[in-house]
Formats: sequence, C-alpha cells, structure tokens
Amino acid sequence: MPKKRIWTNARLATMSPGLPGLGIIEKGTLAAEGERITYAGPEDQAPPADVHEVIDCEGRWLLPGLIDCHTHLVWAGSRAHEFELRLAGASYEEIARAGGGIRSTVSAVRIASEDQLVTESLPRLDALIGEGVTTVEIKSGYGLSVEHELKQLRAARALAKARPVDIETTLLAAHALPPEYEGRADAYIDLVCNEIIPAAAKAGVTSAVDAFCETIGFTPQQTDRVLSAARQHGLAVKLHADQLSNLQGGALAARHNALSADHLEYLDEAGIAAMAAAGTVAVMLPGAYYFLRDTHAPPLEALRKADISLAISTDCNPGTSPLTSLLLAMNMGATLFRMTVEECLLGTTRHAARALGLQEETGTLEAGKLCNLSIWDIERLAELVSNMGLNRLHTRIWRGQ
Amino acid sequence: MPKKRIWTNARLATMSPGLPGLGIIEKGTLAAEGERITYAGPEDQAPPADVHEVIDCEGRWLLPGLIDCHTHLVWAGSRAHEFELRLAGASYEEIARAGGGIRSTVSAVRIASEDQLVTESLPRLDALIGEGVTTVEIKSGYGLSVEHELKQLRAARALAKARPVDIETTLLAAHALPPEYEGRADAYIDLVCNEIIPAAAKAGVTSAVDAFCETIGFTPQQTDRVLSAARQHGLAVKLHADQLSNLQGGALAARHNALSADHLEYLDEAGIAAMAAAGTVAVMLPGAYYFLRDTHAPPLEALRKADISLAISTDCNPGTSPLTSLLLAMNMGATLFRMTVEECLLGTTRHAARALGLQEETGTLEAGKLCNLSIWDIERLAELVSNMGLNRLHTRIWRGQ
Ligand SMILES: [Zn+2]
Ligand SMILES: [Zn+2]
Repeated sequence: MPKKRIWTNARLATMSPGLPGLGIIEKGTLAAEGERITYAGPEDQAPPADVHEVIDCEGRWLLPGLIDCHTHLVWAGSRAHEFELRLAGASYEEIARAGGGIRSTVSAVRIASEDQLVTESLPRLDALIGEGVTTVEIKSGYGLSVEHELKQLRAARALAKARPVDIETTLLAAHALPPEYEGRADAYIDLVCNEIIPAAAKAGVTSAVDAFCETIGFTPQQTDRVLSAARQHGLAVKLHADQLSNLQGGALAARHNALSADHLEYLDEAGIAAMAAAGTVAVMLPGAYYFLRDTHAPPLEALRKADISLAISTDCNPGTSPLTSLLLAMNMGATLFRMTVEECLLGTTRHAARALGLQEETGTLEAGKLCNLSIWDIERLAELVSNMGLNRLHTRIWRGQ
Repeated sequence: MPKKRIWTNARLATMSPGLPGLGIIEKGTLAAEGERITYAGPEDQAPPADVHEVIDCEGRWLLPGLIDCHTHLVWAGSRAHEFELRLAGASYEEIARAGGGIRSTVSAVRIASEDQLVTESLPRLDALIGEGVTTVEIKSGYGLSVEHELKQLRAARALAKARPVDIETTLLAAHALPPEYEGRADAYIDLVCNEIIPAAAKAGVTSAVDAFCETIGFTPQQTDRVLSAARQHGLAVKLHADQLSNLQGGALAARHNALSADHLEYLDEAGIAAMAAAGTVAVMLPGAYYFLRDTHAPPLEALRKADISLAISTDCNPGTSPLTSLLLAMNMGATLFRMTVEECLLGTTRHAARALGLQEETGTLEAGKLCNLSIWDIERLAELVSNMGLNRLHTRIWRGQ
C-alpha cells in the first residue's frame, strides 16, 4: 500500500495556473500518497486522511522541486585551462589551434566509457540536487556519431539510477561538426537524420531532439531537416535559437511545434509571434550570456507582451556556461535580464516543466502531480533569487521520498 | 604535546612569495605541529618526523585556507523585498521612501540582540566555511551608535566561538548617516571620532577602522578625520574608496598607510602611485559591480603595472552584494574584471592576508604560518575560478584541525 504523508504548517507556492502569480497559499497543507500529490491547498480545507507520517514544516516555504530544463551536463574532461588561457590573453583561434574548444570535449567524451561519463558528471548533478532540483534535462552533443551519441544518452539516463532524480534526455547530435566531417556539413546532417536519430529513437534513449542553429553551428535549412526527421520518428523537438545572431531560429522552432526555443538573444518580432502561436516556451540561459560577456539581452518585454511562457535554466556545459546552480541562474536572469522574481520562480518550475512536455507530471503543487518538493529556510521567496551562493534548502522530496 | 600531522601526496599551491606564480610544488608534503605549519615543500626534501597522523591527499590540490577580507556579513533582516520591487520597476527613491535601503538594515540591527545577530549571520558564515574559507573579515556599520556598533562587533567576534574560523573585525561606523543625524554629517563624524572609535578601541573589539568615502557616503575631509582618529587609537585603517566616483579615496587611504583600499572602480593614476608607494592592497569586489550592473571596471592594467597587490572578496552585504561564495567572487573577478586565475587565487590567499595585516600568520603554506588548509577535488587550479556553483572542496583544516 502506498505510503500516505502529509506536510502541514507550510507556506505553499503552488505555481498552479489556476491561481494568480505564484499560486501562494499562506497556511497550506500538502498530502501525498506514494509518489503523487493528493492535495495541495489551504490547511482548513484539507480532507481528513489517515496518514502514516505528518511532517510539520514550521512555517517554511514549500515549492515544487526545481526543474533544470536545459543542460549539457554529461561530459568528460575540463575546459578550465582554456578559460585560463583566454584570461592570459590567448585568442579563440589560438585556443582552437591548440586543440581547445568544443572539439576537446568531443575527444574526451569519445574516449570515455559510459561509466566514466557517469562518474565525471555526478558532482555536477549533485550540485543541482543539493539545491532542490528534482528534474534535469540533459543533452547529448559531444559524441557526434551513432556510437558516442547513444553512449552519452545512456550515461545521462544512468544518472537517474545513481541518484533520486528524473532525467529527461535530448539528442543534440547537430551540436557541432565532428572533425571527420570537416567541410561536409550536409553529409553530417545526412548521418544525423538517417542514422543517429533513427538509432536513438529505436534504442529508446531520448525523448526529444535539439539542434544548434547558428552561424557557427548549422544553417536553418540543415536544422529544418533535423527537426523534420525527429518528428518523423515521433520525437519532440527543441532548438538552440538566435543566440549570437538572428537566423529566425525561433520561428523555425515554432514551425515544428517545438516544446521550446532556447537562448533567443536575437529573436525578432516574427519569431515571437510564431512562438506565441505555437505555444513554444522561451528558455532563458543567462549563464552563457554572463560567461561570454554578451551585451545583447533577449527581448524580454516583447516576450512578456506576447504572453510567452519563460523558463530559465543553467545551460550547464564545459565551454560557455560551467554553471551548476539553478539558484544562481535565477539571480542572473533577474540581474542581467531584469526578469522578475515571479518570472524566475515560474521559470524553474511550471514553465520549465512545459519546456520539457512534463506539465502533466511536475512543476506545480497540484493533486495528481508527482510529489516533487523543495522546502526552504527563507522568509521571502525573493531570497531564492536575490542571494548569490546561499543555499537555504531545508528538504528535498523526489517522488514522495 | 601538540599533535604532529603530515599531509602527503599533495599538489601544493603554497602561494609563497619566494616562489614564482602560485608557488606550485607538484609532489608536495605539508607537516604541522599543533596549529602551525612546520614544513611545506617537496616530498623528497621533507624532514623525517615521528608523526601522530599521516593523511594521504591522493594527488589532490592543497591550498591555504581561503580568506574573505571584506564582508559586512553580520546583519539582521533581509533586503530581498527591495530587490523584488526594483525588478518590478520601483525606483531607488520609491524604495527609500518606503523605508528601504541601508536604513532598513540599520533599524533591524538596532533592535536585534547580539545573539540574534549571531543566529541570523551563521548561515552566511557557514556558506563561506563550506568553501574552504578559514579567515573572514567582518565590518560593523549597521549600528551607527556606540551601543549598536559595539554590539555588531561583538556579534562578529562571537561567530568565531560558534565555528572553527578566524574572524577579523573592522569598525565601519562611518558607513552611512544614521537617521537621527540627518543633515548633520559633521556632528555624526564627531561622534564617530570622539566616542565610537575610542569606545571600540577600549573594548578591544576591533582591529581596524574603515569608512565609506563617497558622494553618497562621507566626504574626503570627514573620512580623513575618521582615519586620523583610528590611528591615534592605534588601529589599522582600510577604506571604501572610489567605487562610484573619483574622490581620490585611494590616495587618501595611502596617506594613512591603509592596509587596503577597496572597490576602486574610479581610482586614478595619482591614487595608484600613492597606493603603490604605501604598499596598500587593492581589494576587488566584483560582486557589488555585478549586482549593481556597474560598467566601469577598476583599472586592472594600471594596478598591475604599479605592482600593487590585488585581493578579491565577496563584500557580502544585504543591499549591494548578497554574495556568500568566495569561489563565485573569483569567477566574477575573472569574467567581469579579466583578472587572471593566478590573480584570483593570490587574491583570496596571500594578498587577502596582507589586506588584513595577517601576512605573518596565514595566506601561504610556509613553515611558521597557521595550518589553515583547503584541499580540493580538482585537476586544475583554474577550475576553482571557472566553475560557477560547483564546490569541490574535499577537506578544510583550520589551525591544524
Ligand atoms: Zn545549450
Ligand atoms: Zn563593503
């Protein structure tokens, strides 16, 4: 019989779309049976229940478990040395010539075993878990071949066996051109569409497909082929879009009914309109913006006007966003993009769930959802966003445990 | 008899001024007797010793315990709500009129007991300790009266009884004008010089005196009086200088042989020359720069040319730098100010010790120094600076324990 637990004396930020703002219930109770929430609402309306355990939250804030909806956190090796060289004055070209950049990560991932990938990635995952994260999206994109992309995705899924967390995997084979395809990008896209996507779909190791549509990545035409192939295999799509230039990536993503379009620094009005019509979530990644010292922020005001759901994520990766703190990502979203506290908190819960197509499962405190909780030692919710480096997580519950 | 311990199989970053760069010894050993280091150097030159305990570092990096040389971390209440209001569009004036800003912290500190201040500050101190920090400077400046400034300093010192850490206190009575002195800044400076400084010196609760020399703080003339009074009472001096405008604060600090001048965004050539001549340390505070969205970085290249020691610190405070991660301060120093990895690491060890006048006691791994250590699960030292939110501390040792 599933265990019945109840959390009393809590201030709930339910994130429920049926309530205004963050769906706050000051004197709240949450009940769960097994891994599902059975009630989240006012204490005085809670149905009577014979429970196995009562947890007194002592007035603490209770939020959904946080969701990091865009990461590349499975990798091997380190790019810290490049960071050091750049600060000492080396150019990107010099670093690339010295074997640096994304290709150094590709080399390291290709020679690593699945177990090694898991071992090297666990400290990063643990950092997220330590901040109350209960769902993490992880992309491939450092293997760039059938064998190594699938290995990376298996490693990502294996992390969910090593820790109490849900992992959503995304195939990002169209992340960069592997060295053996130098000068033959279309041929590599053939491989992605005709071999890597079918193999990943058949093996059941990915829920979605992503691509890097950018002047230094793949063209809109190549990206279009990748997303079409994904949908033919019944996979959801997402897109790295309009980060460094405007290639109408947002609109392209929307045309494929993408769950999300991510980055979006150069998104234009047409892209915003298309995303709004398609219900595509805009994922803000201020860690990369900060780390790359970008100065062209995404068009927040226009996104708000179009009523597009905003998510926020770490983009955890070794080259452009070595960030393993979703709390800090929120602070950067607020400080650098002027996102409000409410936008940051919805962006790591309800809207982040939507960016993963998981809105029926998690991201809010509502009956029927997974009992993923984060309980905080704070007075005001704004502290979760304004503090930098202070982790006031009191308890984290994943699937009722 | 003091306990003899030895750490073997370590990669030492000794930070010793007698060695180039970070004073790296790849195959190193460190020995301690009680709370002092007796040897730090190559394994094959270590003197034989009958020790009580041998710790195998398994090739890990061993650094001095980190030093956060500029914080305001003892306070009560929270300013997260202001942060929220500003993001929602409120102006600084509106927030000040609503009772916000530094005065809200002053009110909260004045009504808090010494014990409450300790309790509220411990999570912030614990965050620093969790990253290998063994020495923390803490300023007063939210009491702004004899009674409450001394209470704040006593609370800071009491933290050192609650945790294994060295606390250096600094009297910052000239931080802001208390409300009861509105329009009477010179009269408040009289109080600071004639009552608060003498009382703090007599009570033995502070090692140094600091002031906020700024258009929105105190004038250079008022600051000069404060620093003179400090020196008459045998106290060292430090200065918040040239952060938001150039008031020749760096030169003023140097004229008083200040241990450090801090912030320095608008420091000019004359100030640099004066600081170089006086041996005053330049303390970089990129957390405030980031949080305030400042765009005028300190003159790093000129400071380097003048061979001025650079320290780096969190400036942990509730209003302009709610930052409790010295690792993140280093990342911000590198990312935003283009400080090198070497500068960041010296800036939180050897040079941070100098900024506190503690260079004979801590900040390097050398015989005779306190055995304050931080041992890290990293491959490259640059990872300590490039990672954001990843704490790879393996062990922290304070005074040999
Ligand atoms: Zn990404
Ligand atoms: Zn300060």
